[in-house]
Amino acid sequence: MTPYQPTPDDHFTFGLWTVGNPGRDPFGHETRPPIDPVDAVVRLAELGAYGVNLHDDDLVPFGSRATERDRIVERFRAALADTGMHVPMATTNLFSQPVFKEGAFTANDAQVRRFAVQKTMRAIDLGAELGATVYVMWGGREGVEADAAKDVGAALDRYAEAVNLCCAHIRDRGYDLVVALEPKPNEPRGDILLPTVGHALAFIDELEWPEMVGLNPEFAHETMSGLSFHHAVAQTLWHGKLFHIDLNGQRIGKYDQDFRFGSEGIRDAFHLVRLLEDAGWTGMRHFDAHPYRTEDHDGVWEFARGCMRTYLILKEKAQRFHCDPEIAEALAAAKVAGLREPTSPGGLGTASLDALRTADIDPSPLATQGYGHERLDQLVTELLLGVR
Amino acid sequence: MTPYQPTPDDHFTFGLWTVGNPGRDPFGHETRPPIDPVDAVVRLAELGAYGVNLHDDDLVPFGSRATERDRIVERFRAALADTGMHVPMATTNLFSQPVFKEGAFTANDAQVRRFAVQKTMRAIDLGAELGATVYVMWGGREGVEADAAKDVGAALDRYAEAVNLCCAHIRDRGYDLVVALEPKPNEPRGDILLPTVGHALAFIDELEWPEMVGLNPEFAHETMSGLSFHHAVAQTLWHGKLFHIDLNGQRIGKYDQDFRFGSEGIRDAFHLVRLLEDAGWTGMRHFDAHPYRTEDHDGVWEFARGCMRTYLILKEKAQRFHCDPEIAEALAAAKVAGLREPTSPGGLGTASLDALRTADIDPSPLATQGYGHERLDQLVTELLLGVR
Amino acid sequence: MTPYQPTPDDHFTFGLWTVGNPGRDPFGHETRPPIDPVDAVVRLAELGAYGVNLHDDDLVPFGSRATERDRIVERFRAALADTGMHVPMATTNLFSQPVFKEGAFTANDAQVRRFAVQKTMRAIDLGAELGATVYVMWGGREGVEADAAKDVGAALDRYAEAVNLCCAHIRDRGYDLVVALEPKPNEPRGDILLPTVGHALAFIDELEWPEMVGLNPEFAHETMSGLSFHHAVAQTLWHGKLFHIDLNGQRIGKYDQDFRFGSEGIRDAFHLVRLLEDAGWTGMRHFDAHPYRTEDHDGVWEFARGCMRTYLILKEKAQRFHCDPEIAEALAAAKVAGLREPTSPGGLGTASLDALRTADIDPSPLATQGYGHERLDQLVTELLLGVR
Amino acid sequence: MTPYQPTPDDHFTFGLWTVGNPGRDPFGHETRPPIDPVDAVVRLAELGAYGVNLHDDDLVPFGSRATERDRIVERFRAALADTGMHVPMATTNLFSQPVFKEGAFTANDAQVRRFAVQKTMRAIDLGAELGATVYVMWGGREGVEADAAKDVGAALDRYAEAVNLCCAHIRDRGYDLVVALEPKPNEPRGDILLPTVGHALAFIDELEWPEMVGLNPEFAHETMSGLSFHHAVAQTLWHGKLFHIDLNGQRIGKYDQDFRFGSEGIRDAFHLVRLLEDAGWTGMRHFDAHPYRTEDHDGVWEFARGCMRTYLILKEKAQRFHCDPEIAEALAAAKVAGLREPTSPGGLGTASLDALRTADIDPSPLATQGYGHERLDQLVTELLLGVR
Repeated sequence: MTPYQPTPDDHFTFGLWTVGNPGRDPFGHETRPPIDPVDAVVRLAELGAYGVNLHDDDLVPFGSRATERDRIVERFRAALADTGMHVPMATTNLFSQPVFKEGAFTANDAQVRRFAVQKTMRAIDLGAELGATVYVMWGGREGVEADAAKDVGAALDRYAEAVNLCCAHIRDRGYDLVVALEPKPNEPRGDILLPTVGHALAFIDELEWPEMVGLNPEFAHETMSGLSFHHAVAQTLWHGKLFHIDLNGQRIGKYDQDFRFGSEGIRDAFHLVRLLEDAGWTGMRHFDAHPYRTEDHDGVWEFARGCMRTYLILKEKAQRFHCDPEIAEALAAAKVAGLREPTSPGGLGTASLDALRTADIDPSPLATQGYGHERLDQLVTELLLGVR
Repeated sequence: MTPYQPTPDDHFTFGLWTVGNPGRDPFGHETRPPIDPVDAVVRLAELGAYGVNLHDDDLVPFGSRATERDRIVERFRAALADTGMHVPMATTNLFSQPVFKEGAFTANDAQVRRFAVQKTMRAIDLGAELGATVYVMWGGREGVEADAAKDVGAALDRYAEAVNLCCAHIRDRGYDLVVALEPKPNEPRGDILLPTVGHALAFIDELEWPEMVGLNPEFAHETMSGLSFHHAVAQTLWHGKLFHIDLNGQRIGKYDQDFRFGSEGIRDAFHLVRLLEDAGWTGMRHFDAHPYRTEDHDGVWEFARGCMRTYLILKEKAQRFHCDPEIAEALAAAKVAGLREPTSPGGLGTASLDALRTADIDPSPLATQGYGHERLDQLVTELLLGVR
Repeated sequence: MTPYQPTPDDHFTFGLWTVGNPGRDPFGHETRPPIDPVDAVVRLAELGAYGVNLHDDDLVPFGSRATERDRIVERFRAALADTGMHVPMATTNLFSQPVFKEGAFTANDAQVRRFAVQKTMRAIDLGAELGATVYVMWGGREGVEADAAKDVGAALDRYAEAVNLCCAHIRDRGYDLVVALEPKPNEPRGDILLPTVGHALAFIDELEWPEMVGLNPEFAHETMSGLSFHHAVAQTLWHGKLFHIDLNGQRIGKYDQDFRFGSEGIRDAFHLVRLLEDAGWTGMRHFDAHPYRTEDHDGVWEFARGCMRTYLILKEKAQRFHCDPEIAEALAAAKVAGLREPTSPGGLGTASLDALRTADIDPSPLATQGYGHERLDQLVTELLLGVR
Repeated sequence: MTPYQPTPDDHFTFGLWTVGNPGRDPFGHETRPPIDPVDAVVRLAELGAYGVNLHDDDLVPFGSRATERDRIVERFRAALADTGMHVPMATTNLFSQPVFKEGAFTANDAQVRRFAVQKTMRAIDLGAELGATVYVMWGGREGVEADAAKDVGAALDRYAEAVNLCCAHIRDRGYDLVVALEPKPNEPRGDILLPTVGHALAFIDELEWPEMVGLNPEFAHETMSGLSFHHAVAQTLWHGKLFHIDLNGQRIGKYDQDFRFGSEGIRDAFHLVRLLEDAGWTGMRHFDAHPYRTEDHDGVWEFARGCMRTYLILKEKAQRFHCDPEIAEALAAAKVAGLREPTSPGGLGTASLDALRTADIDPSPLATQGYGHERLDQLVTELLLGVR
């Protein structure tokens, strides 16, 4: 068997909108014809993926009648059954249609908000029907350019209300679904609400059913702000809120690039894979990326293959990281395990406080000790470059 | 009276380290001699400030003996009494000394962590002694460059433990003090933990006494990441966690500039002032900035004067914003008040859900209506430019 | 007369693609119906503009037959004649069609390059026919994501060849046209060649007829990289290469926003206007921006009006800058005029060198003098805010 | 022999200020004691370096008397002779002393400018004495925060004058020295003149002896602005102006990090090494980086070793790039070599223009062909990761 050959056990998934991306960008028309969702399922199955994810409109065109909708869904379910592919995650398109130009859950016009919630409820029904267990919410239009036009506090009230309504719908229907919020700092709006993983984590604590809601962090979105994606995911795990993840490639301070996983930011990608594997993450490795606009359909499948291969290569490196004796030595020199030791072994009581208050600690030797980070980081670099 | 003349009622404060900044930077030596903290108090009082804030080491040099410490504090208290100035906020320097080079509350070495907590407890005592009611924690060294050297999850455990220990100390001593965490994305570390307002808000929910802990958002720190500071503060207020605020000027994607308030980012500064004033924020308007390195001591006081004047100018504009009939008209056209209306007036029950599920909403007219944001934003621009 | 009312003497121009922008973005469909170019001309004339600029395809749809092309152009010329509007600048769309997906002048495929040059030649003919005297070249597709796919040195050879061919065409036809290159760092390509004003200025020196080629710097494009736009234009003027200018609004490190002039970066915009007015710039003040996607057609014209008004407001402030006695005093304190004095009054000869080598200069008093930048910058801030 | 073991033939050099960096940063004091320059020479020689570079003040403390200076230089030359190490490049510190706080070559005060030129002339003498053949000029203080305080056009006049004066000095003394300008966008100033490789290349064309002046591009400085460093160096080579190069690691949109080469931006670093090796660059591979502040002296030498090893690893990969048959196939599919073919084989004459004007080119097949960039980039990624 060729190494780095993906199988369904690897839990790789792609959005229909990723391999189906036709290459349109802000300055250019489509360069590729559309791909039939059924063909995408078949092809991704052949490549070893576990499943596909979708926005409502990816499968059922906006404005379709109920009978048409059912026919499309039936044909799609048949393709899933034939290939053994799953739809572990579903989501709603609340950004393409002009009705959402001023926002969806946080639009100033209450009717727009109601339309957005209704569309999401129906998309949740579709997701549940297809077997999805995670519902992603990306609020790409929940923002503003002209700051005077949006009361941010009121917008957060409405945002929370909308998420609560969707959770109520899930509960009312008895679906086995959790919700994953996807933060993004900007684009297509000048500033988007819940711009980072942190803002969304904090927001969850104000919801009616916080236990139903977690995050879908995206590599590109955190990286746009110059934040470490692997730190973002680590904090999300720390809060017990990693419900889904979007993998791709991105350079800091640029337009939303959504490049092939690992093509940009390979160092951060390695630490991320190490984190997910060490944490025993059993969820999906979802790729929310798209092929370069230069590609024809052959390039699309090379793109999909590349995303999965790079993950597997990095996963192997993450395993080697733990077996490499020089790395182990450098980790010890850097005292990495020392961080698991409590600072106050006796806890928060007065006796422990007194012990800390009066401890006689000489900072001088602590100030001069070296931590060997240059050596450690060089060892990791060489592991990444495949020369150890 | 000259307009825009600050008075103590305006609640303007400066850090001792701001006007006292000697002009050192990564590439250059000091350009100004040190300022005696007592002189800073006297001079800021003359300029109309309400108070000064300080790190422990700003007032009492690191390593001072107890008697020396008491003598310094006594002299400083006398200056406060003479001038009527206050010390509403205090903090700890956990970044200058080499002992903290690998971290303080999250250092891998437990003894460094203990030394950091002890130093903070003593600084809390100093703050309480001087009458401070807010204790700021900026974890500037709580981060990493060589990612393998820091287990982020364990670091967050230790970070929470350290904050809990400080809160326990405050409770044990019976101080009237709350804690305000100050997020920052990077510099002086490659990546800093709790990099944004959002991450810190989420972190608070995991603490032992979350009600004692809030935020000290800083204009420069959020702006470095390209995030809207006024949105950050709005979300902080939404969570009830605005405990303190750091005002200055900064351009996106640069080194930490800490320029005079309003000198960069004037548009965001205006919306921030409008937000604070509309919210009836009664806390301090603290300037955490420093004069350009080109300045002598005259320039230092011009810097301090400028920070306060710009705030007062923007405050007046925030008041005009509410009185301007054309702006009111544009806000109505943008349906800004509509965001306060519930999306589901009946709440989250099944009947309300059913009403939403079955509502007959035609997106077409909603899609074509204009929101007048260009007009509204231009009116705000002209208000800012002083031509209306 | 209402103040800040534009007239044709102000030399304001708009691209057909700016007011005609239908609100499509990477995540959303069009929100406004197309505007007939003739209507745009009529409406902009009413608002006080001097002219309109265009890409070939803005006026004549891609692939039109010659007779159709001539009919369209004739109708458009009639509208220009009726309104007194001009077309001072023209350009080619080398980015929308899929044929240019891998580049245009620097495409790896020679036939694509030939098609691009031919299309540009024909667009030059159109521009000349409409009376344009500046031809802008924006190489938005001249770049790469997968670095191995583009030999940058060879690409610069071909880029120079293509510009030379267009200049040869202009000379051969005897047109009264100069060429203005428009740099941009990225988007829609991962990296674009000639990414800044500097790179393009250097490139010009390698061309066959460098005197025919200058720059069209754009506010948004330099700002995306965090560079000062006003510094970029100042250096362009220093090289005698400011042939055209694109005005809009943008935040650092974001997608290409092309907001209304002055809506973002107002401080840099002020210094830019001051620079242009002080330099006696007689060319066009071209707005390459587009209305927010939230707007209907009323908003489009508010957008256009706002761009021009803000320029005029800033122009008035630039005039006040020169009349304000306190600012004059602060400029003197900062020794601004001292920079015009030669460092070596005697030039580069040996005697002058010897004088410099042996001069007895004591750095101490030079090190301690203050420059009053805080005061100066605060005065400018208050001028900008309209309170002086 | 251990692979990736540097030797003097590899032309690796380090600044005295790099391994000698004591770990001071804007928020913290020194963490390492100073290293005697002679010890640095000895240690770097042992590690396989070719030479060391220096600022005047790195070797001879600012303000030293002539006899002291000569003693220091003599001792240093002896160490060079003993070890066989070279000083291929020298430069001047025009940024640390307060006298330069408002600029050096472009200070508003003419006496400061004269002092800066004089200091540079003397540093040139020192460089020539030590055998340097490249003189680097980094104008770190040539910039401004308060834009009204600096007339950019006049500043460029003075900048050119100062470089001309230094060139005149070199010619007058008959030194075998060229000058290499080092661009940087910001830090320690808000905006620095000649902010990118492009701006500096353009500037050179206005100098008195442009043939004596080229560039010293730095990885960190271009990357701070989000520009591709390898594109910057490619354009520098295209202009024949690569006179020196500064290698290190940096993330976009951050403070000046100067990390170990390859620790950040490994993908861009690979393409850079490939470019330098393919171009047959015979100059120095200079590392302008510094060890993390966490390191003791052992870490300093690990840092130096890591910089060189990573270069050698990437050099080997650059060689493999040319031998890999699948990569060759993908390069052919992407038509990379096609870019060397002239667009107009017959040149710029009328006949050639006519041929282009009338060529019958159908864009449709050109629009649908795929370029295989996903496959090519994935192959390069796997080469980088060491799995092919």
